[in-house]
Amino acid sequence: MSMRTYAIVGMGAVGGFYGGRLRRAGHDVHFLVRRDAESIRRHGLSVESKDGGFHIHPVSVWDDPNRLPACDVVVVALKAIHNHLLPTLLPPLLKEDTTVLTLQNGLGIEPQVAATAGSSPVLGGLCFLCSHKLGRGHVRHMDYGNVTVGEHTADGRPAGLTERVRAVGSDLERAGLPVTLAEDLATARWTKLLWNVPFNGLSVVLDALTDRLIGDPHTRALVETLMHELVGAAHANERPVDRGAVEEMIQRTERMTPYRTSMKLDADQARPMEVEPIFGEPLRAADHQEHPVPALRALYQQLKFLDRWNRSDAVDQETPTGSETR
Amino acid sequence: MSMRTYAIVGMGAVGGFYGGRLRRAGHDVHFLVRRDAESIRRHGLSVESKDGGFHIHPVSVWDDPNRLPACDVVVVALKAIHNHLLPTLLPPLLKEDTTVLTLQNGLGIEPQVAATAGSSPVLGGLCFLCSHKLGRGHVRHMDYGNVTVGEHTADGRPAGLTERVRAVGSDLERAGLPVTLAEDLATARWTKLLWNVPFNGLSVVLDALTDRLIGDPHTRALVETLMHELVGAAHANERPVDRGAVEEMIQRTERMTPYRTSMKLDADQARPMEVEPIFGEPLRAADHQEHPVPALRALYQQLKFLDRWNRSDAVDQETPTGSETR
Repeated sequence: MSMRTYAIVGMGAVGGFYGGRLRRAGHDVHFLVRRDAESIRRHGLSVESKDGGFHIHPVSVWDDPNRLPACDVVVVALKAIHNHLLPTLLPPLLKEDTTVLTLQNGLGIEPQVAATAGSSPVLGGLCFLCSHKLGRGHVRHMDYGNVTVGEHTADGRPAGLTERVRAVGSDLERAGLPVTLAEDLATARWTKLLWNVPFNGLSVVLDALTDRLIGDPHTRALVETLMHELVGAAHANERPVDRGAVEEMIQRTERMTPYRTSMKLDADQARPMEVEPIFGEPLRAADHQEHPVPALRALYQQLKFLDRWNRSDAVDQETPTGSETR
Repeated sequence: MSMRTYAIVGMGAVGGFYGGRLRRAGHDVHFLVRRDAESIRRHGLSVESKDGGFHIHPVSVWDDPNRLPACDVVVVALKAIHNHLLPTLLPPLLKEDTTVLTLQNGLGIEPQVAATAGSSPVLGGLCFLCSHKLGRGHVRHMDYGNVTVGEHTADGRPAGLTERVRAVGSDLERAGLPVTLAEDLATARWTKLLWNVPFNGLSVVLDALTDRLIGDPHTRALVETLMHELVGAAHANERPVDRGAVEEMIQRTERMTPYRTSMKLDADQARPMEVEPIFGEPLRAADHQEHPVPALRALYQQLKFLDRWNRSDAVDQETPTGSETR
């Protein structure tokens, strides 16, 4: 059997890392980028990594989706806030038996992808990855790299371990990545929110790395409150998140090297934040079941405010003088 | 009848303004300051004000509480976080019939003051004042100046309009200040928290002036949530805050010139913030009655974290590298 071919949409911290690892493992991999295709073609893709860096040259990279060879698997590695581009980017990449794998954060991702994927099946991959893009064709991998893969179903019921899930999972595994196969993708997504909501959110609002958030008794309590609210909202939505995940994630984060979250990186660079997929979607799902999530709501409201005013294109309306209001 | 004499503890944005106005109205006023007494004695007290600035020279100013003349009224105009200094500062200022008036923010203030005031009656004054200290002996008054005065009772029951409340109120009124007399000081304090909690707190966490907080639909909703939680907690504690105060304060804030709150000024200058009197005290009062205040709790937890790390004496433990955690 020949090896599956991959198209990777986006060459950021996620697409560059996973695409590079698949290419290094011997797959044909073709990247679709928004800009800098010519420069990346000339210089290749460099991945610095704690697991050993590598350089790929030549690299198949394109800025026009109509020019990429049709592939067996299309990997969506854009930020979810750019999903309005999918109707233009995705359809030209699909052939009859293409599988789509989205590696995006948050809830409500697969339905967005499926809406432009025609009859192609859609898988979701949850990345536990610390990496960032240093520049065009240049990614630094700091830690982790685990992927949880499951298949999306239109009605949200567990798809089980389909042949496609096993196939993509085994490709990633042979690329040296720790892989978990999820029978129930929707519940796996809720479980991942238990980490993303408190740490992405509070890292932005409080300008902090993970170690301080977990090390301070007040923010640690707030982290736990947010996690418990999410577990409750998940159960109210018939997503049976394991309640033991709260303590497990707390302990895992305590052992982590201090990290600046992806949302904090976005905020620091005045880029739009993934507020809706990570916070808005679970909030609305909780509201739909009338399950109370007051700490999540407050954090969402704070982030919506910050996302509005933090953008590099926001007009600065602050008055220059300070005064004291008692 | 001769005019009442005043001792003012602190010459900051509050003590400088109110003390200066009382002095200008003809009272003997003596200031107790931590430092710079000699310089202020030489240069006097300057108040810039939208209502007309004034300069007081000579000014009676001291850095030793034992040297101040005993006065009819002692005004406590320190930040509440410095109340651990009261056992040293207050007793030397008291004579047999001295009244103590504290102009501090938050809950639980009068019991702290009363504990060091011996048999002297304690009044509380709630200041609706926009002013700040520009330097030693130099205050800028931006807006407002209203004071609500009421008398503290050991059991927390309404004291009614005592003779002392009327006397101090009339002095402030003759100094040109809008005065409200409160029969029920404890309820007035809770009512004031309705403004201080959301606007002081969110201005720090979200780095914003009042206009943006009230103008954005997400933070406006959070402001209202916090206000309603406080109204509920007040009622649970048998402080019958008028429920109409929420809408009234929202509308008043919409009409205000954009302000940097006093807590935001403290944060910007890496000074300790009044987190416990403004947030911790009502939170514990709500918990005591098992009244849920989840948004207040989350905001308290965030501010405790920021207050810890924002201090100029906090050790910066941030790692220099950034990384992305998905």
